[in-house]
Amino acid sequence: MINPFFKNKGPFKISEILDLLNINKDIVTEDINITDVSDLFSANKSDITFFHSKKYNEMAKKTKASFCITSENLLNELPHKCTALVVKNVLVSMANVTEKFYPTSINDSFDNTCLNIIETKFKDKVKYGKNVLIGENVNIGSNCSIGHNTIIEQNVSIGDNSYIGSNVILRNSIIKENVKVLDNSVIGKHGFGFFPDSTKNKRYPHIGLVIIEENCEIGCGSTIDRGSMSNTVIGKNTFLDNQIHIAHNVKIGENSIIAGQVGIAGSSIIGNNVKIGGQAGISGHLKIGNNVDIAGGSGVIKDIPDNSKVMGYPAKSLRKFLKENR
Amino acid sequence: MINPFFKNKGPFKISEILDLLNINKDIVTEDINITDVSDLFSANKSDITFFHSKKYNEMAKKTKASFCITSENLLNELPHKCTALVVKNVLVSMANVTEKFYPTSINDSFDNTCLNIIETKFKDKVKYGKNVLIGENVNIGSNCSIGHNTIIEQNVSIGDNSYIGSNVILRNSIIKENVKVLDNSVIGKHGFGFFPDSTKNKRYPHIGLVIIEENCEIGCGSTIDRGSMSNTVIGKNTFLDNQIHIAHNVKIGENSIIAGQVGIAGSSIIGNNVKIGGQAGISGHLKIGNNVDIAGGSGVIKDIPDNSKVMGYPAKSLRKFLKENR
Amino acid sequence: MINPFFKNKGPFKISEILDLLNINKDIVTEDINITDVSDLFSANKSDITFFHSKKYNEMAKKTKASFCITSENLLNELPHKCTALVVKNVLVSMANVTEKFYPTSINDSFDNTCLNIIETKFKDKVKYGKNVLIGENVNIGSNCSIGHNTIIEQNVSIGDNSYIGSNVILRNSIIKENVKVLDNSVIGKHGFGFFPDSTKNKRYPHIGLVIIEENCEIGCGSTIDRGSMSNTVIGKNTFLDNQIHIAHNVKIGENSIIAGQVGIAGSSIIGNNVKIGGQAGISGHLKIGNNVDIAGGSGVIKDIPDNSKVMGYPAKSLRKFLKENR
Repeated sequence: MINPFFKNKGPFKISEILDLLNINKDIVTEDINITDVSDLFSANKSDITFFHSKKYNEMAKKTKASFCITSENLLNELPHKCTALVVKNVLVSMANVTEKFYPTSINDSFDNTCLNIIETKFKDKVKYGKNVLIGENVNIGSNCSIGHNTIIEQNVSIGDNSYIGSNVILRNSIIKENVKVLDNSVIGKHGFGFFPDSTKNKRYPHIGLVIIEENCEIGCGSTIDRGSMSNTVIGKNTFLDNQIHIAHNVKIGENSIIAGQVGIAGSSIIGNNVKIGGQAGISGHLKIGNNVDIAGGSGVIKDIPDNSKVMGYPAKSLRKFLKENR
Repeated sequence: MINPFFKNKGPFKISEILDLLNINKDIVTEDINITDVSDLFSANKSDITFFHSKKYNEMAKKTKASFCITSENLLNELPHKCTALVVKNVLVSMANVTEKFYPTSINDSFDNTCLNIIETKFKDKVKYGKNVLIGENVNIGSNCSIGHNTIIEQNVSIGDNSYIGSNVILRNSIIKENVKVLDNSVIGKHGFGFFPDSTKNKRYPHIGLVIIEENCEIGCGSTIDRGSMSNTVIGKNTFLDNQIHIAHNVKIGENSIIAGQVGIAGSSIIGNNVKIGGQAGISGHLKIGNNVDIAGGSGVIKDIPDNSKVMGYPAKSLRKFLKENR
Repeated sequence: MINPFFKNKGPFKISEILDLLNINKDIVTEDINITDVSDLFSANKSDITFFHSKKYNEMAKKTKASFCITSENLLNELPHKCTALVVKNVLVSMANVTEKFYPTSINDSFDNTCLNIIETKFKDKVKYGKNVLIGENVNIGSNCSIGHNTIIEQNVSIGDNSYIGSNVILRNSIIKENVKVLDNSVIGKHGFGFFPDSTKNKRYPHIGLVIIEENCEIGCGSTIDRGSMSNTVIGKNTFLDNQIHIAHNVKIGENSIIAGQVGIAGSSIIGNNVKIGGQAGISGHLKIGNNVDIAGGSGVIKDIPDNSKVMGYPAKSLRKFLKENR
């Protein structure tokens, strides 16, 4: 289970799920319970997963899930123990199943359980400014402080010695010890993930969290969206400057330094000790290695191996960029 | 009339306007009433308009306005029924006339008519968070919700089933049905339009609105400025991600998808079904066709025809960009 | 003294400082008082300064400071009257000394001295919105207005006729006459300056201010960080659009115009009458001359002389850029 916060309404009988997917129930011999939705890698035997691109062939071959939503052309990659549920649109179908398990994960309305902190158990424990609001299911460690007008919505855990600035909005996030989240940041809303439709786009559920490991600093006016099927993670002792956007499912390693106005698109994975200069952008679904330096203003559109220095749009070896631009 | 919100102090006699412009009143034979200011295309017979660039020759030839502020070198393009008012600086003169009609459109001070929503007629109609403020001349449809600390200043209309997040500031905007405006966005302030002056720049009036059509979503920390002489419009079912800036007079079509940190400069027109990748920028006064794909990080500096895919800075055909950057 | 706000805990005996730096006290014959920390250029005889790069050789030769933290390879540049204090890491050592003089300059916690403006002396002097908070050591001139939910933390001076929008956070800043700071901006927090460490980065003190000269306008959602050893300055009548990031120690001249989403990295100096198009980025420690035009989207990575027009990434002469990209 990747999310301690969103309530799983399961288990559901596989027959109910087949109904939802408009798949003939004859394909199953036993109406077993399905416990959870999960990705190919994390799924257990009692989970349902999905497989929508041959990019994930290797993971698909090893999945432990008993059922997998997939398409005609991919089903042969699945192991024998995993029953393929063939649908027209894998992602839309998976979204529908996910919504069945986690109906609240699609709704990002403001949290109306919030109370002024002076009405909560934190009033004597936390140092706080004016008009601080706290929702349900919030934990705050010792020696924390929270600035004026900040809204800690439901499903937030804050570790010891952390500092949350003013006008911040947090939800669905685990903030570890010694973290600073500076003014006007918004952390933990759903990502920019939806299925386009010509009259009304359909949002898909975001059951992932934002996890900010210890000793991090997040600059003013930044946005970090929570994950859809996995978490968005900022590794230990990584510092982000102002006005940074981290999209859903992104994972950033430890000891990285990210300058102002950088944007990292969905599901990219950034290594440890990575330095990213101001205004650089990283496309989605990329893998940036450890000890990588990305110069300010770069536009990264492919994977970058460990220990590289890159610059440019599209980003290329720093040496090459500087040579070409002498 | 393009703006239902700013109060038109007119009509004014044409003689008063000529006085303001330091133009000899002998050029008119009859001291008729001028009802409104307008652009070349929208102007009626009783309006005054302006014409400052030959780029607008075709529109100028067809204008219905009786008077047009313009410059010596352009006046011959105007139809016979339209009297040219020749000035040194067309835009400054038009700003002065606009300010005469709409004196409040130049002042963007905070709205001191705001009351806490619990003191307003909306208290039983709307689902709202803490500290929500509502100004005068606000309409909110049924089944709407408004997050904590949000400020709905004067001149706002919100359609049914819309959701406004927390810490949002709205003014001078029409939000249609089923729209989501997420946390920390600022919508409807005047654009970045002024006449540079070596000691004190002079702002020009912004009498346009922001109009957000039904089913749109606007991401966190975005800014959408209202128009100067026309409206800023986001078309139906268009989704904007976080930290996007939409400048004054921009018009975006339907079903478009705009990723994080994109900026669109003043007066550009974007078609339907346009996809714009993260951090792309679009210069001012451009026309982007329908079904255009603009890759993340691109810098668009000229018009783009329908059905194109572009990438790069300056943006060029995607095929060409990828070939050049293999 | 560059900062009227942070309290200088000095003077300290030079022997105490040598202790802190682990330097043998035998190098001084007299245990004099050190009054302040300062940069090479501004330092007086009773100050301690630092010198960490040969880039500053010329300034080092002329410094008036009696003591200078520096490294083995640079010490010969210093004048005879200035005693070199040789350390392994000049910047870390200087940070430690600075922290000794200005312990509060490292802590950027929210200001818990803030009161609602209605409880302060400003309640009859200023036009204000709901929930405005004012900290200690704040001065506000006549005819100012402050929007809803705005937080003026300690150490702020606002000149006559200035307008601060809603949801703004100000601290450690001098705002002159006739300035507008628009909604959701954050001005005066410490810059993104720290010493990377593999388990816990160490922040260095920021004892500089933000100074915004008269007639400026700062757009919505902008961030302007205060300086570390010098001030961050926005010159007279300079206008910034929305979502701009100005890093610590940056100095911008007069009558400049900076469009949306521009970012300027630390310590760069921008001249007068400079125009910077949307989303352009300027690297740190650069010098941009007077009357320079930087096209939107450009990435500036070297100094630019007066009267230049540049475009591109890296930015080059506009003429050359357009020729190469026809």
